[in-house]
Amino acid sequence: MKNRIHFNICERQEDEKARLFSAIELEKTTIGYYNLPEQDINGILEYVKEFNSDIENIVVLGIGGSSLGAKAVYEFLKPVKTPLRKLYFFESTDPLNIMDLLSKIELEKSHFLVISKSGTTVETISIFKYLYLRQSSASNYTFITDKESALDKFAKDIEAKTFYLPAGVGGRFSVLSVVGLLPLALCGVNIKELLSGANRVKESFFNDGYLKESLLNKAIFYAKYHTTYNINCLFAYSETLRYFSEWYVQLWGESLGKKQCNSAFHVGVTPIGLIGPKDQHSFLQLIVEGTRDKSITFIKIEDFQNELTVPDITLPHLESLDMLNGITFHDLITMQSDSVLEALKMQGDIPLDEILIEKVDEDSIGQLIYYYELLTSLVGQLINVNTYNQPGVESGKIILKNKLQKNKKVKK
Amino acid sequence: MKNRIHFNICERQEDEKARLFSAIELEKTTIGYYNLPEQDINGILEYVKEFNSDIENIVVLGIGGSSLGAKAVYEFLKPVKTPLRKLYFFESTDPLNIMDLLSKIELEKSHFLVISKSGTTVETISIFKYLYLRQSSASNYTFITDKESALDKFAKDIEAKTFYLPAGVGGRFSVLSVVGLLPLALCGVNIKELLSGANRVKESFFNDGYLKESLLNKAIFYAKYHTTYNINCLFAYSETLRYFSEWYVQLWGESLGKKQCNSAFHVGVTPIGLIGPKDQHSFLQLIVEGTRDKSITFIKIEDFQNELTVPDITLPHLESLDMLNGITFHDLITMQSDSVLEALKMQGDIPLDEILIEKVDEDSIGQLIYYYELLTSLVGQLINVNTYNQPGVESGKIILKNKLQKNKKVKK
Repeated sequence: MKNRIHFNICERQEDEKARLFSAIELEKTTIGYYNLPEQDINGILEYVKEFNSDIENIVVLGIGGSSLGAKAVYEFLKPVKTPLRKLYFFESTDPLNIMDLLSKIELEKSHFLVISKSGTTVETISIFKYLYLRQSSASNYTFITDKESALDKFAKDIEAKTFYLPAGVGGRFSVLSVVGLLPLALCGVNIKELLSGANRVKESFFNDGYLKESLLNKAIFYAKYHTTYNINCLFAYSETLRYFSEWYVQLWGESLGKKQCNSAFHVGVTPIGLIGPKDQHSFLQLIVEGTRDKSITFIKIEDFQNELTVPDITLPHLESLDMLNGITFHDLITMQSDSVLEALKMQGDIPLDEILIEKVDEDSIGQLIYYYELLTSLVGQLINVNTYNQPGVESGKIILKNKLQKNKKVKK
Repeated sequence: MKNRIHFNICERQEDEKARLFSAIELEKTTIGYYNLPEQDINGILEYVKEFNSDIENIVVLGIGGSSLGAKAVYEFLKPVKTPLRKLYFFESTDPLNIMDLLSKIELEKSHFLVISKSGTTVETISIFKYLYLRQSSASNYTFITDKESALDKFAKDIEAKTFYLPAGVGGRFSVLSVVGLLPLALCGVNIKELLSGANRVKESFFNDGYLKESLLNKAIFYAKYHTTYNINCLFAYSETLRYFSEWYVQLWGESLGKKQCNSAFHVGVTPIGLIGPKDQHSFLQLIVEGTRDKSITFIKIEDFQNELTVPDITLPHLESLDMLNGITFHDLITMQSDSVLEALKMQGDIPLDEILIEKVDEDSIGQLIYYYELLTSLVGQLINVNTYNQPGVESGKIILKNKLQKNKKVKK
């Protein structure tokens, strides 16, 4: 992948970059996600090799960090690579959504991955209870959770297979751990390639490679202007990146939306996922003429490896559109993103950059994932937040528990 | 529907409200969308009645305002009402997306609705050319465009059926016109109910009904604080509202993201669509602890009309979650949204309100659509923008045309 930056970088920030780099090198020794690209995946690969070949559906019961990463990779690759098995996600308590999903899967041909770091996620366990009553054979379930969690103990009781989250890896940074790798490998995704893509970005950053400068410069810019440009839009020119952008929203929002360490000051850059060219007809007007509070990152696929072409035909009265004749849709969508980038550049006061990924494959999405994880860690360091916790969601959970307990008593 | 406001309304703004109401009453005489609820739909209903019963797929070729509205309504109703025909949308030039859609539809059993107000939308016409080469029978196409557009003339040439957009109705306000009604009616949606829901909100607003006060108060608050709370999040607690939220993003972003009339000042409130409970595990942390730049509107469904229940079973080691036993998923998701609302209220400095819609049916979504259209018009009036144009997207289009012409010459 490449990253082209179209905003002005301050020349005199060598010290700042060196300090930031050291801080991240230090963080790497305690935060688990940094080293996932080199993990031993033999346990996963062996499990997949011996997996029941009658199973047609892999069904993830998980929410947030337990589902968004695998979904991003699976949906990215689906249009170019028929999955070995279909991947489904139960990630809502909406009864209509649960019914709809149930109507799509045959229980006998489905294997369920119950994923919850804490082991007591309300959404996941409520749906698990519902399914377990209908399908209670332990061989149809695999659990992914923290060692010694309540869910781990339950899994041991019913003698089901369990995988553990590696130490120091939070949910939203877990896609390259067993949380993402297991469902993906079961669906035929080449997880070795996924990790080697991630490792390429890791090496590049930590060993003075091609991405180090742009990552440091970009993070410093975002941090310096985080109150001015308080929104970051990821404008991806391919429908294949729709769920990657949902993953990015969680990663960015939950990691950087915080009270600053040792202060009561609220900070955070709000993430927005856009898909081109569709959102040229929806959100672009706001970027061009609206408040100057947004930085924009374009993501382009360099080679769609697809020759689909607008036919060379003239339609009466529509001759003005003959300029489209004979163009591949690949070239068309590339010209569309280039045109919007140029138009925004002309505005002069919108920070823009471009990420180019080679093609739609495991290696490319592995790179993109690790790039965004690194960028998030870098910005988090600079705006002085704890990138890896999420204390803000606790109070809602406590209120819900109280409501549920009250409800239970009333019923009794 | 109901709208409960949880932020403080300034008591002394009666004059302001009266002025705003008069301005909207005046606008109603020139802007076309206001009067769509009372339109004559017999032409559409007759066309649908005599429609070829062998057709199984309705395929919309359209982008932005030509697709988002119908998609919002169709996807909202789908889980409770099996569609008469399946509805597909070609709305991207991504070749992988086009190939994927092509693999799903049988051309012989498909009818294509080519929707473009201008008649020369690049995305729509390029895909149309591709399809027309494969299926050139005029009876398989219906066109929706402005009278006398190039596309209208082409349709006349091939003797295909054409419907016209009513005067004064822009793309993003067109869902209740033939643009949305025709595809929806062909898929079995009760468009009379849809319009009567919209009409209920219209009557309520213009005739001193239950929504007038809350709409005026909310618009005044949003406008007054548009530089402080420069982001509006719609937090909808149902997967059925996923595409409604995309429609809202276009409506809000493209209508309000503008240079102010007679000034060079950039304004606009950035729209973000969230879905609960999923985004509690993604975006909520940022709302609770991040920068205070967001107002939040919760949308809840009062009655899912579904009794799916968490079974009353105790699982070893997971006894702490027995508080979930016997609860309907409907009650659970409602408690989840109530808990998050309460937790956010405790923060004290986040403007919150709730919209309650009765159930998942045509009438409810019709109400919600018209409510949001009105709210957009009201805020647009107050922040002094032209709510109904989108001049900011033009320069990108011009650059693209130049690129395409250059490309054409090089090829020759």
